[in-house]
Amino acid sequence: MLRNLPKKTMLTISPDPVFATDQTRTLLPRLWAFMEAEVLPLEAAMLAGDFKHFEQTQVAALRQKVKAAGLWAPHLPASLGGLGLSLCEFGQVSELLGRSPLGHLAFNCQAPDIGNMELLEKYASPALRARYLHPLVEGHIRSCFSMTEPEFAGSNPVQMATTAQRVGENYVINGHKWFTSSADGAAFAVVMAQTDPDHPQPHARASMIIVPTDTPGFELVRNIPIMGEAGSGHLSHAEVRYHQCTVPAENLVGQPGEGFKLAQERLGPGRIHHCMRWIGIAERALHLACAYAGRRELGPGKLLAHQQAVQHWIAESRAGINAARTLVLHTAHGIDQRGSHALRTEISVIKFLVANMLQQVLDRAIQIHGALGVTDDTLLSFWFRHERAARIYDGPDEVHKYVVAREELKKYGVKL
Amino acid sequence: MLRNLPKKTMLTISPDPVFATDQTRTLLPRLWAFMEAEVLPLEAAMLAGDFKHFEQTQVAALRQKVKAAGLWAPHLPASLGGLGLSLCEFGQVSELLGRSPLGHLAFNCQAPDIGNMELLEKYASPALRARYLHPLVEGHIRSCFSMTEPEFAGSNPVQMATTAQRVGENYVINGHKWFTSSADGAAFAVVMAQTDPDHPQPHARASMIIVPTDTPGFELVRNIPIMGEAGSGHLSHAEVRYHQCTVPAENLVGQPGEGFKLAQERLGPGRIHHCMRWIGIAERALHLACAYAGRRELGPGKLLAHQQAVQHWIAESRAGINAARTLVLHTAHGIDQRGSHALRTEISVIKFLVANMLQQVLDRAIQIHGALGVTDDTLLSFWFRHERAARIYDGPDEVHKYVVAREELKKYGVKL
Amino acid sequence: MLRNLPKKTMLTISPDPVFATDQTRTLLPRLWAFMEAEVLPLEAAMLAGDFKHFEQTQVAALRQKVKAAGLWAPHLPASLGGLGLSLCEFGQVSELLGRSPLGHLAFNCQAPDIGNMELLEKYASPALRARYLHPLVEGHIRSCFSMTEPEFAGSNPVQMATTAQRVGENYVINGHKWFTSSADGAAFAVVMAQTDPDHPQPHARASMIIVPTDTPGFELVRNIPIMGEAGSGHLSHAEVRYHQCTVPAENLVGQPGEGFKLAQERLGPGRIHHCMRWIGIAERALHLACAYAGRRELGPGKLLAHQQAVQHWIAESRAGINAARTLVLHTAHGIDQRGSHALRTEISVIKFLVANMLQQVLDRAIQIHGALGVTDDTLLSFWFRHERAARIYDGPDEVHKYVVAREELKKYGVKL
Amino acid sequence: MLRNLPKKTMLTISPDPVFATDQTRTLLPRLWAFMEAEVLPLEAAMLAGDFKHFEQTQVAALRQKVKAAGLWAPHLPASLGGLGLSLCEFGQVSELLGRSPLGHLAFNCQAPDIGNMELLEKYASPALRARYLHPLVEGHIRSCFSMTEPEFAGSNPVQMATTAQRVGENYVINGHKWFTSSADGAAFAVVMAQTDPDHPQPHARASMIIVPTDTPGFELVRNIPIMGEAGSGHLSHAEVRYHQCTVPAENLVGQPGEGFKLAQERLGPGRIHHCMRWIGIAERALHLACAYAGRRELGPGKLLAHQQAVQHWIAESRAGINAARTLVLHTAHGIDQRGSHALRTEISVIKFLVANMLQQVLDRAIQIHGALGVTDDTLLSFWFRHERAARIYDGPDEVHKYVVAREELKKYGVKL
Repeated sequence: MLRNLPKKTMLTISPDPVFATDQTRTLLPRLWAFMEAEVLPLEAAMLAGDFKHFEQTQVAALRQKVKAAGLWAPHLPASLGGLGLSLCEFGQVSELLGRSPLGHLAFNCQAPDIGNMELLEKYASPALRARYLHPLVEGHIRSCFSMTEPEFAGSNPVQMATTAQRVGENYVINGHKWFTSSADGAAFAVVMAQTDPDHPQPHARASMIIVPTDTPGFELVRNIPIMGEAGSGHLSHAEVRYHQCTVPAENLVGQPGEGFKLAQERLGPGRIHHCMRWIGIAERALHLACAYAGRRELGPGKLLAHQQAVQHWIAESRAGINAARTLVLHTAHGIDQRGSHALRTEISVIKFLVANMLQQVLDRAIQIHGALGVTDDTLLSFWFRHERAARIYDGPDEVHKYVVAREELKKYGVKL
Repeated sequence: MLRNLPKKTMLTISPDPVFATDQTRTLLPRLWAFMEAEVLPLEAAMLAGDFKHFEQTQVAALRQKVKAAGLWAPHLPASLGGLGLSLCEFGQVSELLGRSPLGHLAFNCQAPDIGNMELLEKYASPALRARYLHPLVEGHIRSCFSMTEPEFAGSNPVQMATTAQRVGENYVINGHKWFTSSADGAAFAVVMAQTDPDHPQPHARASMIIVPTDTPGFELVRNIPIMGEAGSGHLSHAEVRYHQCTVPAENLVGQPGEGFKLAQERLGPGRIHHCMRWIGIAERALHLACAYAGRRELGPGKLLAHQQAVQHWIAESRAGINAARTLVLHTAHGIDQRGSHALRTEISVIKFLVANMLQQVLDRAIQIHGALGVTDDTLLSFWFRHERAARIYDGPDEVHKYVVAREELKKYGVKL
Repeated sequence: MLRNLPKKTMLTISPDPVFATDQTRTLLPRLWAFMEAEVLPLEAAMLAGDFKHFEQTQVAALRQKVKAAGLWAPHLPASLGGLGLSLCEFGQVSELLGRSPLGHLAFNCQAPDIGNMELLEKYASPALRARYLHPLVEGHIRSCFSMTEPEFAGSNPVQMATTAQRVGENYVINGHKWFTSSADGAAFAVVMAQTDPDHPQPHARASMIIVPTDTPGFELVRNIPIMGEAGSGHLSHAEVRYHQCTVPAENLVGQPGEGFKLAQERLGPGRIHHCMRWIGIAERALHLACAYAGRRELGPGKLLAHQQAVQHWIAESRAGINAARTLVLHTAHGIDQRGSHALRTEISVIKFLVANMLQQVLDRAIQIHGALGVTDDTLLSFWFRHERAARIYDGPDEVHKYVVAREELKKYGVKL
Repeated sequence: MLRNLPKKTMLTISPDPVFATDQTRTLLPRLWAFMEAEVLPLEAAMLAGDFKHFEQTQVAALRQKVKAAGLWAPHLPASLGGLGLSLCEFGQVSELLGRSPLGHLAFNCQAPDIGNMELLEKYASPALRARYLHPLVEGHIRSCFSMTEPEFAGSNPVQMATTAQRVGENYVINGHKWFTSSADGAAFAVVMAQTDPDHPQPHARASMIIVPTDTPGFELVRNIPIMGEAGSGHLSHAEVRYHQCTVPAENLVGQPGEGFKLAQERLGPGRIHHCMRWIGIAERALHLACAYAGRRELGPGKLLAHQQAVQHWIAESRAGINAARTLVLHTAHGIDQRGSHALRTEISVIKFLVANMLQQVLDRAIQIHGALGVTDDTLLSFWFRHERAARIYDGPDEVHKYVVAREELKKYGVKL
């Protein structure tokens, strides 16, 4: 049961006066109309039942509608059947999709698949593209990305125990991973493994290899219970063991030893995607809070919205969201023009800034809802639980602050 | 699966140099030894399965051990089979129990039963005591407290639609409640209902009435899913409807129209109980964080504990906990001497101060744990989810800040 | 004595990739080179002595150099001898000027004169323009703005006791004002006074009138000591009394009763000016902090910059500054296109967002400097003291949060 | 001019129900009555003029009244003419004195003299006691403490360049110090200098030596301008150079090489003194804020105190103050029983906790006062400026957080 559902008229889309383009000015209203008509009404069902089943039935049907509406895979170039948007344009799309927990999945631009598509599109051989990228683009399969290991701190990405040993024409993979998100139901994993563990340069030891999930020795140990919910299907985070998992050597993505480089490249735009999605969540949370404050009575004629504390939270959330959105689009625009390496400081800035803003906006929205806010009768609890990790995944706050300080202090001759 | 379990030697009990008494100096070490030997080992099982089943089997057995150890019902006077502690002494006990999500339940001093026991002990007729209080004290039954209504803001307790109409020798109750915590499996509810809805004084309209849960018309609509978990048994929060629910008039607790007064009285020490339990949680969370920081390697020879940010979080958490503990015990001591009405400002101070401290300590502990912190492989997620409500239940932060400001401004001639 | 002075190479100007124009790409490097060569070297002298004397000697000479360099009055249209910049372009200039406490004054775009110039340029009669605006534009005189009254809360601008009574061809002004900034040495004040105190519409009661400071009855009571410093000349905030102060009726600016409307119009861009100046201050403070952290040794080979806490403060300051800058320029761009009324929510957002960011950045920079940070041997204390008021003047945080919440809640049918 | 002065009835003293003793229950009301009658009325004059002159005239006269009232030197044992209080009792006194910037000076328990008295009382030879301690105790002279050096980070106290070379029966001192507080007008300095700079143990290199300020070679370079104010007399912080400054070897306090140990011992109770003084300041600031909020009108019948934001700030300040007070008294009580070494973690906790609480309470009080808050027409600006250093002196926040984390992590086998 979802209470406090949005009325259509309240969540609006005003094209950004600086970053909107002709394409987004046309696209965004169409897309949001689709979201309101087709996606938001499914949210209650999504929360109520088994996600995997929901995915295979209602999401599958929804995806057909997205395709029919010509909105499929907005992040992809037109040549691959996408909308051919710049990163800054896609950022604007992504915010709208992010307003619903179903948005990105419905449009086939959900993590981790979006990152895998970008990766394969750029680095996979034609054979790998045909076998893995194209069905992924079509939405016929899902994929996962298998990098983090429970035994090592993710903040130090060169620490890794998983190995891929070259044996004749194959790689034989052994290792232990977790937070291999969406592995449950995925057709293949992109696995980070050490192919040259003794290379003097730690950043050159690992490679990325595609491992179909039906390969013998691929063991999905469990969907890790996270914040009270193990989830299933796309909405899950797996622990995986690789036991002598053998795949053809041509499953390598890029060159041997390029794993770390590719991971970095995969993460750059990935962080923009997350940030814009978070802004969409924050906007929706603020909307829910305002809608509730505007009708909940504390007494006769006295609305929650009349409380100054509530007004301050609304204003602070509005300020946080607007500052975040402008900076993220500004960064995306920079990446479009100069590539993500040139914007690495800015990317780290937005990663921790927006993740923290999101947590605060959600927390305030919950407090405004009172007891209702901690129930699953609104979407707030879903995001409060699922997005506590926003300050951790793809680099915790502390790593990104380090990056920013390191670049800043470089100007002063300090090497960190 | 619970990782990062505590080692016995790390969580210590040092009797407070000011507030310890001869009794607590002896009792606390015994009690903590019991906790470590018998209670903490059950936590993993508690998280893994259905709570109601766990309660009926393992908790039931555990409670026998508590009784055998002579530690049962520490909050009760000796005449009722308890340990005869002052509130300040019980606060010290409660912190230790609070270090585990099972502590209070094992010792039969869990909310809402503890509040109901105190209420019935003070205000129930001998007949009601015999029928409801004694089995509750013995742990043969559980109970619930049915006050909050979804249609009205809990911050304004005189708003209420549930009525109890006097019809002959009975009350006939109709209404809709939620957050009737632990109703699932409870033998009776203490229900707040308007017995005199037209009384000119709003605070005199409601009364408290005992309603056995097997009374026809008592409908447990659902255990409300809260932060991803509907729970069951004691670990649940029910939505309840009362349809012409008829109980004998002698089920009234106290006098007609005293409902609000009794609720206030019930909440005063209740807030101390919550605060001390929260301090126990915070202490445990800090313990988990230190234990993890002290062994997690970021690289060869480089511990998480060597990070200055982690050190600062530990120090800030220690400061927050110590300040909270001292102030809560100071307040409990005051209540012992002067009653909870005289300490109402202090009670409001600690309610919002400690709830916010808890949220921060938990948040820092999660961040220290990184990805592990958001999983259910530690206890942190359980508390992060369940205790977000600490800033809402028994009066949201905003209500308590209002109370403190109102008392403070009174001295300056301002009436709020 | 100023320690920790900047080295030229460290504070750079990178034109904003989105908001830079051909003009600012050329102008900003020239302007910053001038600032480094001519303005920054005077800061130590400014802090050391009597400001009024400093203003009349060194600032006067500096202003000649600004004129000679063709950089004078960058905010003004070319027709008035300025650089003809858009607000968004001037914002970029203003940030650079704001990096020094002397910047705006040197370039004749300091508050309150900048606001008075904009006001007179738009609303003054040709005669008033000739007599007051032109010498102000030339820098021959300074001016002040006399609105706030000690007896009334500035957050409610329609409360006012100062009156301007029409007597024949004159207005006779009586009243009590304070925070008439820079009155000491000013040639005239623009005074807000009630010309129609009984008008049913409170917003139509006041008018703006020019009062030369040598008018009999204009009493500069004192330069109010603020944060330990009464200051003098431009760097002062006066308490003023008007005793039967008589000026010709043609000294009225705009129409009778338009005072409030004009004040609002004056404040819109004024807030952008403040915000960009604050960003300049914050950027300089971060620069000082990095420079210090990069050379201060805690022990052999161990720099302050190696402390993770210091790195986090630097990163958080960088994030705050970048988010603020982008949002302010975005807002200025919007005002250029749609006027300040259309951007009123955004203006309120940046007002409190940037003022709070500034306070935090200064506070962190001081903490990084340790004992040196609280001395006047750096500029930090000057700004820490003078800009605590940033969260108060031109509308306190609370008023701007109210405005933002009011606009946000309007969409939900709530009238505040 | 001081506006917003307190009315006597509003700032009350309620003896702490736990920590009050028979002595404080009698003493505190007498002392506060004296403060209200004799000390608070002098505050305006203190702010208005030259402090040194004020000290030599009005403070001197006031001190006679303190002596006459039998309240002199409350921190000293009765044998030295003091009140013979425990540290916990003196903490309660110190809070009351701290409510005025004049309190401690009037009662002769101001830093740095109080620390010097404690030091000399414990470690000085009879001859030094006669010559330096007794006149200090009598208030005939003042003293200073000369430790911090501008060239070295104070957070690492073993770094030092000042030397005291033994030459025959004398020490010859050379060095450069700053933040030698109250040197202006002091009769002697206690100087930290390296007497054995090559000692393998860094903590054994320095000693404490008494240097009369009229010794040739003692150069008071300047009173450092701090937050806009160089001050004079007791209210100043000097930069001092020692040029071949020669004093008799018997001016050594304690043993050679004990400087660091004595400094630590001097700082332990010193931090309690600061903390209690800060609580007094915070209490007064909250009082000023409430008094102002309770009479400032925002409009007809609408008080500042009616704003929910103001109420929340008041409540948060009350909570912060009460938590701080209870924890500080708890710590003082512990020191009385077990010595300051045993309480070193607690001392570090309160040092950063209370300093930060103070800054927040002052900041909120200023915001409540609006424009008035940044003027010197209230005491708030004095404290806002002077006490920004509270988070820096006697160990910055970061050092104390390190100490707390180090002790906490020790339990987990981590050595920091």
